Amino acid sequence: MTVNRPEVVAEITALFERYERALVEKDVAVLDATFWDSPYTIRYALHENCYGFAEVHAARVAADPPPGGTKEARIRLEILTLGTDFATVNLEFKPRGKPGLGRQSQTWMRLPDLGWMVVSAHVSILPIGT
Amino acid sequence: MTVNRPEVVAEITALFERYERALVEKDVAVLDATFWDSPYTIRYALHENCYGFAEVHAARVAADPPPGGTKEARIRLEILTLGTDFATVNLEFKPRGKPGLGRQSQTWMRLPDLGWMVVSAHVSILPIGT
Repeated sequence: MTVNRPEVVAEITALFERYERALVEKDVAVLDATFWDSPYTIRYALHENCYGFAEVHAARVAADPPPGGTKEARIRLEILTLGTDFATVNLEFKPRGKPGLGRQSQTWMRLPDLGWMVVSAHVSILPIGT
Repeated sequence: MTVNRPEVVAEITALFERYERALVEKDVAVLDATFWDSPYTIRYALHENCYGFAEVHAARVAADPPPGGTKEARIRLEILTLGTDFATVNLEFKPRGKPGLGRQSQTWMRLPDLGWMVVSAHVSILPIGT
């Protein structure tokens, strides 16, 4: 089980950056292509909890991101890959126009036929001073 | 890639319940045995962000859980296993004595020699009405 094989890290990095651009641009097709289309997919987001791909998709359509996106700046990005088919991404960020520390976590699996997909995600803001 | 093989779900369920008891009882040995002892392990918690096992461990030692633990009630528990070596656990819960919706996410890997370990975790409270 090789940790952080460079070619696997490069794949996840490219997919993560594509996803982040799609969040800012509200590119629903790319957002949908990033998350596993299954009833098992979960996204705990900044404003709602979504169970299953249909709820994740509905939240994408309803989202109204501010210009430039909800992230004002990145603080720390950590990508971990284990072997060739499994990865986590964790990003600590400064929320745009709000206090607190943003935290974004994703679990990726390389699925047969589908390729890399996020199967679980969690985004939150840690209030400062708690 | 078989989803939710019963024997794999049973393994993760038992480990998760052991971990939850250890949180309430502040059983640091069990908490430490649950998370991967590596510099890559990340835990975004209710009061801090921990990078690497040493920081996760230090937060365990410093924790002062209220009687009965920080969770007052479970709302929805979702365990997903993919194949035999990968799992996610997501729990939505009512925080004890606080408003909001608690969300707890864990990513588990079955690692050679070590067995099942949490490699990434994220706990947050979603303010109600946001």
